Order: sequence, then structure tokens, then C-alpha cells
Amino acid sequence: MRTIWLEPDGASVGIIDQTLLPFALKTRRLDTLDEAAHAIRAMLVRGAPLIGAAAAYGMALAMRADPSDAALDRAAKTLLATRPTAVNLRWAVEDMRARLKQLPPADRAAASYARAFQICEEDVAINRAIAGHGLPLIQQAWEKKGRKNPVEILTHCNAGWLAAVDWGTALAPVYLAFDQGIAIHVWVDETRPRNQGASLTAWELGSHGVKHTVIADNAGGFLMQQGRVDLCLVGTDRTTASGDVANKIGTYLKALAAFDNRVPLYVALPSPSIDWSISDGGQIPIEERDPSELAEISGKLPDGGVARVRVIPEGSPAANPAFDVTPARLVTGLVTERGLCAASREGLLSLFPERRVA
Amino acid sequence: MRTIWLEPDGASVGIIDQTLLPFALKTRRLDTLDEAAHAIRAMLVRGAPLIGAAAAYGMALAMRADPSDAALDRAAKTLLATRPTAVNLRWAVEDMRARLKQLPPADRAAASYARAFQICEEDVAINRAIAGHGLPLIQQAWEKKGRKNPVEILTHCNAGWLAAVDWGTALAPVYLAFDQGIAIHVWVDETRPRNQGASLTAWELGSHGVKHTVIADNAGGFLMQQGRVDLCLVGTDRTTASGDVANKIGTYLKALAAFDNRVPLYVALPSPSIDWSISDGGQIPIEERDPSELAEISGKLPDGGVARVRVIPEGSPAANPAFDVTPARLVTGLVTERGLCAASREGLLSLFPERRVA
Repeated sequence: MRTIWLEPDGASVGIIDQTLLPFALKTRRLDTLDEAAHAIRAMLVRGAPLIGAAAAYGMALAMRADPSDAALDRAAKTLLATRPTAVNLRWAVEDMRARLKQLPPADRAAASYARAFQICEEDVAINRAIAGHGLPLIQQAWEKKGRKNPVEILTHCNAGWLAAVDWGTALAPVYLAFDQGIAIHVWVDETRPRNQGASLTAWELGSHGVKHTVIADNAGGFLMQQGRVDLCLVGTDRTTASGDVANKIGTYLKALAAFDNRVPLYVALPSPSIDWSISDGGQIPIEERDPSELAEISGKLPDGGVARVRVIPEGSPAANPAFDVTPARLVTGLVTERGLCAASREGLLSLFPERRVA
Repeated sequence: MRTIWLEPDGASVGIIDQTLLPFALKTRRLDTLDEAAHAIRAMLVRGAPLIGAAAAYGMALAMRADPSDAALDRAAKTLLATRPTAVNLRWAVEDMRARLKQLPPADRAAASYARAFQICEEDVAINRAIAGHGLPLIQQAWEKKGRKNPVEILTHCNAGWLAAVDWGTALAPVYLAFDQGIAIHVWVDETRPRNQGASLTAWELGSHGVKHTVIADNAGGFLMQQGRVDLCLVGTDRTTASGDVANKIGTYLKALAAFDNRVPLYVALPSPSIDWSISDGGQIPIEERDPSELAEISGKLPDGGVARVRVIPEGSPAANPAFDVTPARLVTGLVTERGLCAASREGLLSLFPERRVA
């Protein structure tokens, strides 16, 4: 199962409605640009690579309805406004717009579906490559522990297959290592306020048979102090040309703890997540989401039903910044589809020399 | 209103059942040692100073029922087993036991009520003094900001009046500064998994009229990076003789972020929270609480009822360490009832010279 696919009618797009996990695995059909934009904004689909893919299909749905120049620009504008931080979305939309602009309107619908399909396939290939390049990090930890106790990996948010088209980014090497018989245990940060760790990562790992334990976001530093984490692996929504990493809010705190306890922290970085246009992480726009995401929480009632409950007093305001930026100095290394590199301009350019400005 | 009191019958003890806040303010009567022990274990009362006071009254309830030596030892043992990390509990129980042991059994009940009352009064006096010694930290921040924008204070967990008999520790200076007209805004860490920030601190501050915003525990580092925190103020459950601070899980992560962003972090430290017998924070026993505290959460339904919902997949285990230790090197200073000092052996001994071993 993938997270996004073209329906058999060759026109609508299927997704998993991730807001219902882990308690229900339901798919949903997107037929229009607005439905695609809503799915991204309301986080039915989320994860930097997946929202890139969903935006690409959103462009295709728009072109199917109206392939004019005006519709093309409107579609791009609508999708770019859905979520500001993950750069994959911008990358996918601009890639599509540039290609489609050059074509006569009559050819745009077919071309956009073809390119959206290709973006999905590329995403899978990128993440497979990240799995391969990240694997040695886990193998080395396994050897270092004498192949006895499980390799203890801490992850934040969800950077598994649900965050991408398949495989995932940070969890891709975990799945590959697990499939190769390496004993692994994953500490899953709950990831407040939307609980992507508790809801999505725990569900993914459980479904795959990977041993894991859900912890409060507060607990990771303590576990590192206790020597109970061998490796931190996280994803990214946007990484600057100098290696500053925007990722789910709270990643910075884990990076500080990893650094303080000499625990290596690697960021799984598909190249569409790199923003070559900026160097300083401070320039990355940080999405502020609705405070209700913190004030209310959905869960399963004892009778099996799902309810949404309020967890802060009426009258107490809440704030909900969705990402933070981990400075490159705290990142041990980046795992890209072309291999590992240092979190620095030189590190990134060593793998992506075509980006070197003469 | 205080958090604990002797009922008019002169025998039972009244408390606020803090597990029902912020949605219901209900009091409860404790008549026996076992009820007191249960109230501490199940966190109807919580907060290091308050569980010290509750344990003292638990000893009194035990002595009322049976003032024998055996009952005295049993009461001490029962109460000491309720919660391992906060040292105030041990301090109060051992203080009571030592005093009562010297008395004939017939005098023990009256003496224990008198001493429990005194411990509560001392706690209030200590926290009033902490308010006074912490006030200049807030005043200085207010002056530095030209008395214009509110002083931005970040706090973790609940170290307000609900955590003590009255006033609180970390929030005591906040209330005093507010009452003196200093503009204050408090960032309230939600404090997973038991949400003492969202449930108790937000409720306390709101009731007092202090401006505040609830944030995910993940968000504090980001706010500090953005320059939106002037001062961190937290409490402690046990501080070693060299200034290592055990406090609610996640405090260490905030201390790392404060240090990384040059935001001062002060720990409000009533002297009964100091464990003079150990130096290394690594020796502090860390309570592991039930994983259900993370897996399930209580909140208010849209119809006004309160429900408990499960928020992690069935079959995914959870872990719930309740405290972590912030090394002294990350603590800007300690606010004790005798004044401010450095988080170090010398700092503490400068205020408590009677503890200097010749």
C-alpha cells in the first residue's frame, strides 16, 4: 500500500486519510484541486515528501478541469498557500508549473498526470536510496553492541512511509535494517500537538513488526542521559543550503540533548527538501497552526468510539508553532539519496556539485 | 484557599483533588493513613512541597489511629514508598518520625498534628520568601525591557500554589511581580504526560488574572530561539548538594535550550527539596509511572462531560519516566528562601553554612 495513487479511472487520486489513524485506516478520493488543497491543509496527507506528491496530483486535477494559463497559475497559488514550511510542496508545484507552461493547454492534463506519477516514483526511488545509505549507521551501531542488544533509535514525528509515497525517509533505513535481521527498538516521540509519533509512527512500526515504545516528547533527553539511545534519526521539511534543518517542532530540543550526550543525530534528507535559495535557517517560514490542535485531542473511548476532548481550561489561550530549526552545528550528518554528508554547505555541495555556483 | 488543611473536626485532612482540575474544583477528606498514601501515589496531591505536607498529615492520621512504635514505623514506610523522587516527602516523614519517636505514644497524635500544621506554615513562609528573592529577577527583566512589553517567562509543569501549601515555588515570584503591577506573560508548557501545565498552571494563572499561553512541550526551544522568552523559572523535586536539579521530565530539554540561547534559567528551591546526602544527580531515583498516563488522556467532551480517551495504538507499549536531572552547569541560579545562589556546592553552602562539614 502506498500513501497516494491514481484511481483506476485514471483521473481521481486516492489517499489514506491520515487524520483517522491509528484507529481507522480509511482511504479517500480527491477529484478536484480544492479537495487536494484541503487534504494538504487539514493534514489528511502530511509529511514533506507526501505533500509534494499530493501537490503534484493537485496540479493534475486542476489541469483536468481547466488547462488554461490562468487555471495553471491559480492552481499553483492555491497549493503554495496550503502549507508554508515544507519546501517539497513548492518544489513540486514549481516543477509542474514550469513544465506545463511550455505545453499547449490541450496537452497539459496528460502531461501533468504523467509528471505527478513520475514525482511519486522518484520519491520512492529517493527513499529506497536513503534506506541504503542510512543502513550502515544502524549496522555499525549493531556491530558496536556486539550484535546483542537491540540498536536503540529515537525518532521524532513521523518520517515513515506515511510521510512519503512509500518507505519514508528517517524510517527507511530502520525498515531495511529490520528486514535484514538487525535487532532494533525505536523510541517513538509522541510529537505533540498532533501526535504523529503516537498515532502514525507507532502504528507503522507495529504493523511492520518493529519493536518500539511510545514516550512523551519530554522523555528523550532523559533516555539519552541514561545511555539508552544509540542513534537519533529524523526527517526534515526544509533544509537550507548550509545544513540548517527545519523539522517538526521539538526536533531542536532532541538535537540539543543528542549533542549534549554525544548521541549521533542524522537527518534523512531527500534532495527535494533542500532549499538551495537560503542559507540561514532563520529565514525558513515557520507555520503557525490552529491552537485547537493543542487544546483538543482525539482518541478512542472505552466503547470503541472516537471522541475529541478539550485538555486545557476554557479561556486559556494556546499557541501552536509547527516546526523549529535545528542549526547545522547540532546535526551529525545528512542522509541523502546520493549518500551521507556533513550538515554544511561544503557537505551538501560534495554530493550535489551541480548546485555549486561558478 | 490552600491545597491542604485540617478539617474543623480537628482530625481529618482536607485536600483539593487535583486530578479533577481544571474542569472541576472538588475537595476531598482524608481520614486514614491509607487514604493519605493513596492521595499522594495517585497524585490527588502532587508537587514536592505539597507531598511533603501531605505526608506529614498522613503521619498524623496514622498516629490518631494507633500511636505505637510499630504503627509509627509502618506509617513512615507506607508513605516513603508512595513516590521516590521528591525528597520533601522523605524529609517530612523522617522529621516527623524522629520527633515522634522521642515522645510517649499517648502524646504522639497531638504532637504530629501540631508538627504537620507547622510544616505547612513553614512551607508558606519559605515560598513567600522565595517570592521575595525571585522578584528582582523579574523586576530586572522588566526594567531591561523599558517597562514596555511584558516580561516573558517560561515555566514547566506546575510549581504554583497547587504544588505547595500556598504561593508555590517557581510561580511565587510571578504572582508577587504581577501583584506589584509588572506586566507578565507566562508560556505554560503543557507538560506531558500528565499535563500539569495545561491543567494546573494554566488554571492557576487564569484564576489569578495572569496572562499566559499554553504551548506544547516541544515549542519552548523555538520560542527561545526567537527571543520570545526572557526568563525560565521552574521548580524542583530534589536538588543535590552540588546543584543538580531533578524536576519534571523535560526540564532538562528546556535547560539545554535556555543555555543554548542565553536565556537565564532559575530553579525555585525550598530548602526541604535539597538532598544534602548526594552530590551527583545521577544518584537521584527517577520514578517510572504507569504507561497508561501517556496512553490515555482525560478531557472535556463537547457536552461538558469528562472522558478518558486512548491516544496510542492498542499493542504499542509506552514508557513513562516522570523526572529528569538537569546538571548544575545548565542552571543560572537557585532561588531559595534565604536568597539567590549559584547552582553549586559552594553556592548552596554560602546560604546554608550549617551544612558545611567541618
